[in-house]
Amino acid sequence: MEKFKVTFYPDNKTIEVDKGKTILSAAISAGVFITSACGGDGVCGRCKVIVKKGKVFSQPTGMLSAQEKKQSYYLACLSVIEGDIEVEVPAQSRQDFEKLSITENEQKFASLYEVSEEIESAGTFTGGKPIKHSPLVTKIYIELPQPDLNDRISDLERLNREIKKIRNVPIIHTGICNIRQLGELLRDADWKVTVTVGKRDEGAEIVCVEPQDTSSKNFGICLDIGTTTIACQLVDLNNDAIIGTKATYNKQVSFGSDVITRIIYAKEEDGLEKLHTAVTEGINQMIQELTQEHNIDLNDVNCAVCAGNPTMIHLLLRIDPAYIRKEPYVPTANYLPVMHAFDAGIKINPRGLLYCIPSVASYVGADVTAGVLACGMDKEKEPCLLIDIGTNGEIVLGNSEFLVSASASAGPAFEGSGVTSGMRASKGAIQKVTIDRRDYSVSYSTIGNAPPRGICGSGYIDLIAQLLTCGILDKGGKIKDINSKRIRKNDTCAEFVVAFKEEADTGSDIVITEADIENIKRAKGAIYSAASSLLKHMGLNFGGLNKIFIAGGFGTSIEIKSAVKIGLLPDIAEAKFIFLGNSSLTGARIVLLSSQAMKKAEDIARKMTCFELSVEPEYMDEYMAALFFPHTDAQRFPSVKI
Amino acid sequence: MEKFKVTFYPDNKTIEVDKGKTILSAAISAGVFITSACGGDGVCGRCKVIVKKGKVFSQPTGMLSAQEKKQSYYLACLSVIEGDIEVEVPAQSRQDFEKLSITENEQKFASLYEVSEEIESAGTFTGGKPIKHSPLVTKIYIELPQPDLNDRISDLERLNREIKKIRNVPIIHTGICNIRQLGELLRDADWKVTVTVGKRDEGAEIVCVEPQDTSSKNFGICLDIGTTTIACQLVDLNNDAIIGTKATYNKQVSFGSDVITRIIYAKEEDGLEKLHTAVTEGINQMIQELTQEHNIDLNDVNCAVCAGNPTMIHLLLRIDPAYIRKEPYVPTANYLPVMHAFDAGIKINPRGLLYCIPSVASYVGADVTAGVLACGMDKEKEPCLLIDIGTNGEIVLGNSEFLVSASASAGPAFEGSGVTSGMRASKGAIQKVTIDRRDYSVSYSTIGNAPPRGICGSGYIDLIAQLLTCGILDKGGKIKDINSKRIRKNDTCAEFVVAFKEEADTGSDIVITEADIENIKRAKGAIYSAASSLLKHMGLNFGGLNKIFIAGGFGTSIEIKSAVKIGLLPDIAEAKFIFLGNSSLTGARIVLLSSQAMKKAEDIARKMTCFELSVEPEYMDEYMAALFFPHTDAQRFPSVKI
Repeated sequence: MEKFKVTFYPDNKTIEVDKGKTILSAAISAGVFITSACGGDGVCGRCKVIVKKGKVFSQPTGMLSAQEKKQSYYLACLSVIEGDIEVEVPAQSRQDFEKLSITENEQKFASLYEVSEEIESAGTFTGGKPIKHSPLVTKIYIELPQPDLNDRISDLERLNREIKKIRNVPIIHTGICNIRQLGELLRDADWKVTVTVGKRDEGAEIVCVEPQDTSSKNFGICLDIGTTTIACQLVDLNNDAIIGTKATYNKQVSFGSDVITRIIYAKEEDGLEKLHTAVTEGINQMIQELTQEHNIDLNDVNCAVCAGNPTMIHLLLRIDPAYIRKEPYVPTANYLPVMHAFDAGIKINPRGLLYCIPSVASYVGADVTAGVLACGMDKEKEPCLLIDIGTNGEIVLGNSEFLVSASASAGPAFEGSGVTSGMRASKGAIQKVTIDRRDYSVSYSTIGNAPPRGICGSGYIDLIAQLLTCGILDKGGKIKDINSKRIRKNDTCAEFVVAFKEEADTGSDIVITEADIENIKRAKGAIYSAASSLLKHMGLNFGGLNKIFIAGGFGTSIEIKSAVKIGLLPDIAEAKFIFLGNSSLTGARIVLLSSQAMKKAEDIARKMTCFELSVEPEYMDEYMAALFFPHTDAQRFPSVKI
Repeated sequence: MEKFKVTFYPDNKTIEVDKGKTILSAAISAGVFITSACGGDGVCGRCKVIVKKGKVFSQPTGMLSAQEKKQSYYLACLSVIEGDIEVEVPAQSRQDFEKLSITENEQKFASLYEVSEEIESAGTFTGGKPIKHSPLVTKIYIELPQPDLNDRISDLERLNREIKKIRNVPIIHTGICNIRQLGELLRDADWKVTVTVGKRDEGAEIVCVEPQDTSSKNFGICLDIGTTTIACQLVDLNNDAIIGTKATYNKQVSFGSDVITRIIYAKEEDGLEKLHTAVTEGINQMIQELTQEHNIDLNDVNCAVCAGNPTMIHLLLRIDPAYIRKEPYVPTANYLPVMHAFDAGIKINPRGLLYCIPSVASYVGADVTAGVLACGMDKEKEPCLLIDIGTNGEIVLGNSEFLVSASASAGPAFEGSGVTSGMRASKGAIQKVTIDRRDYSVSYSTIGNAPPRGICGSGYIDLIAQLLTCGILDKGGKIKDINSKRIRKNDTCAEFVVAFKEEADTGSDIVITEADIENIKRAKGAIYSAASSLLKHMGLNFGGLNKIFIAGGFGTSIEIKSAVKIGLLPDIAEAKFIFLGNSSLTGARIVLLSSQAMKKAEDIARKMTCFELSVEPEYMDEYMAALFFPHTDAQRFPSVKI
């Protein structure tokens, strides 16, 4: 096979690839980041590169302007390498990566999830309440009676005998490596040891045995693995305290922005392995930072509980998710056996256990199960709705009698990805916006009151609502041609400047473009129409709901009025809305701290049915009608005056 | 640290070792075999080497003759290397290794264990009878209903659902590697698969999933790991048929001939690892030969069941056996959890399971449990005795009411090790001997009617009985000074020639020396006195026994009269003796083929108590009295006339 040399700038990385490869696949192999939202299908137009030297063959595309073509711009995913080449990856095609890098290194930023905890403790959060403290993994300090000529049972039996006196469950597993060290350890420790015991089905596993009393050091990790964002929380399993929380972008975004493109990428050579590595690297980095910052030994982290959509769970466990997207859409596993975190590449105590919260169906995952557990809607008498706003928007309708779910592909806009000045809800994110009707001057607040660095989900909701209120934006999502220094045309469309670079922390203006607005319109349309279709299907309407739980990583809390104004949330009494923050992470934490909650999660997953929007002909009509601010049918939003 | 070069001849291997090492430890590191029965304590005198060049410091020893000292002979274990040296390992110090090598390569020899099967089928063998066919690992062929839009549970749940219809046990474990391949496998196989299901406590583990119907191919291995000999049997788990049996010397003999020297060796640098490797190499070679000879794929061997004494089981699992020999003599584990054979270094299907039969105490092991299971003495009304003649002799006394065991260190003489012309009971072994009173001419029979290659356990028993009968040997074990070409003096003591080299297959005379006779006298004395002490302790005597089961690797079957004559077996009615062959292996096979038998083995191990001979003051008197042919107290052997 003929091979060609490809050099990427500014990374100055060179790689040799087989003839026939695209620039994008060469970049992935070389570890060079090029933004790609569609995963290499040539439809998002985000992977623009400049071929400085050498020859490529590229399929025609409408994603490049005449100007760009003249400057040797190509789409990396459509360009097949035909000889040794040199490629420049321009700043715009590296943007997501830079965001990602900055976010990773921000260790002191208040994250969305920490704020959510405040909401919880302030009482807004109603679910997940009294669940008995019974963590999945516990430590037991034991002073063993020493063997003598009258009590000569083996070391392992002696240990099991004492454990059973304290915790009457059958011990169904003890790793051979624990047995190998047992004899010396017991004697060196003068028969005073701490045993870490993990729940395994109806029995228990001896996770590890340590000398002396280490029972005060028992920690767990809960994880929400989102398509765009991963959140990780370190919890003290002795007193349920949250020690710290981190969130980062899922590095898998290099391989496509949604689950479908990743499922396809998993079929590429080493694709599954690369996706698996991308997600575990992110997780391990957060775990390491959290433990280091709080002076906790990684070996004292004995348990991880993981929520996420089914594709994310499959990729974490290195299971090919191929069949999730093939009719009849069947995942390889919804209920996963307890395993060692090590086997999934998660670096905690090497014998620590990993529990995956069960999923419901191909597109209704453990995150939804965890969300229901967190909000407690399965205990409510009246019907409630749970809306989880993520790259995949998930909707659950139900009460103690029934639970039915649907999912809609919303895209990552509310998580600050795929939009020009978007960022995660962390320090410096613009989260609330007011625009003066008279001079279009903008005032805003940022998370942590820091200089603005970008706009997070709640900021976009507020911003668009304000643009509509001030008449800058029409109901279709076009920026009107108004004479203001804040309104201008960029290469392809109009944009509004929220913060000029002088006031920003980024070296460039913070803007919202018509393309961004289109993105957000589709996202909010997908979510609203999914909820309304599901209600219709069940013979209900928004007015008949008792509570609407709002979950997701869009911001600290959204202005209900703004969300209603843009048509994301239905126009009903504000008091019915309850914010959960990241309910998937909260659900995972509840499970981490309670064996009964794990059982409950299984019950929820079993009880939940799925409503497949894509096979419902009315859904497309509902969706099209929702691609308007607030909606094509103004009567649905009587309170909204624009 | 100063380093010296050591070169070994005739291997011509050179190794660099730290100052302070002995020649024996250098040889072990270099992979050069030097016989050592005491494991390096300087007491057996078998590790003689010639230092051809260079300087060593050696402790004084009585094990070398003046002549040998003059010829630069040294004991390898007592000689510390003090500079670069060259060492010759003479033939006599390599003997055991050569035996071992020959045995390993004998693929066509009828082994003891095959003959034992004949005994079993001839009806001599009474125990282990009807146990319901319920192998520990089974294969189930399943044609799964394909998923459609109305039946969309995940692949893993679908599989579990169908398994449960056939086998109603909870599936408590499925390895992630099985889950990883499940999606593609089910579809490629058109939903027709064979699931291998293994018993795990009260539930089941999915061992592996294969495409199409492979249920006719399900095999298991049972193992008896003895201190001197390892036996391995390949069994068809579908129809209980024994496909083949092999036995080989345990390669651990390089590190000492009994369990104590090996326990000590395990504490050396890498000692545990080397002992572990030595035993698994032997096992894996037998498994490979058995499967190759019978055209069986190693991946179709899904289960291994292992019996052996506690030290052997510890070393197999790479558990330090140190505490077995330290008061109060507590093993690390008697009851071992089910594990993957892979984790113990046993090469069958990489997901195949390993079950260890439970042990009773430090010196009463799984081999004894298996032996009781095999003979069925735990179901007898009247008291019975089980005598297992091995390097460690084990005695069990009991019936359905009680079981009490004792063990005695007999040494490996009955297994053909540590005696001049000794060999395992395989082709060419002299097993029966008659000596003509008049001219001392010898007639003998060999296993497989082959030219003689050595003498096995049963041959030694017959031979000594005959030497006594003909008046060649006195009751103390000395060869009388008779004028015969067969009776002569070697370097250190008198010897009797059983077969001259002209008739033998070995190139040298097959002899028995006074030292060999002393070895066998001690072995038989240890076993007889252990049995008599145990009976005395329980207020019984040999006359009150209903049956005496004889097990062990001493030969195809021993002449009762001869065994009584030398004082190995008590002088009671011949009809009460029942030969079991290798009862440890038979017990392991019964467990392999029956889940209930595994439960029964656990019951037996729990029920059995241990009688510690070493703390019994009378035992030493009994033992001393037994160091005579047949016994110091002639009244105990009324039928014996010499």
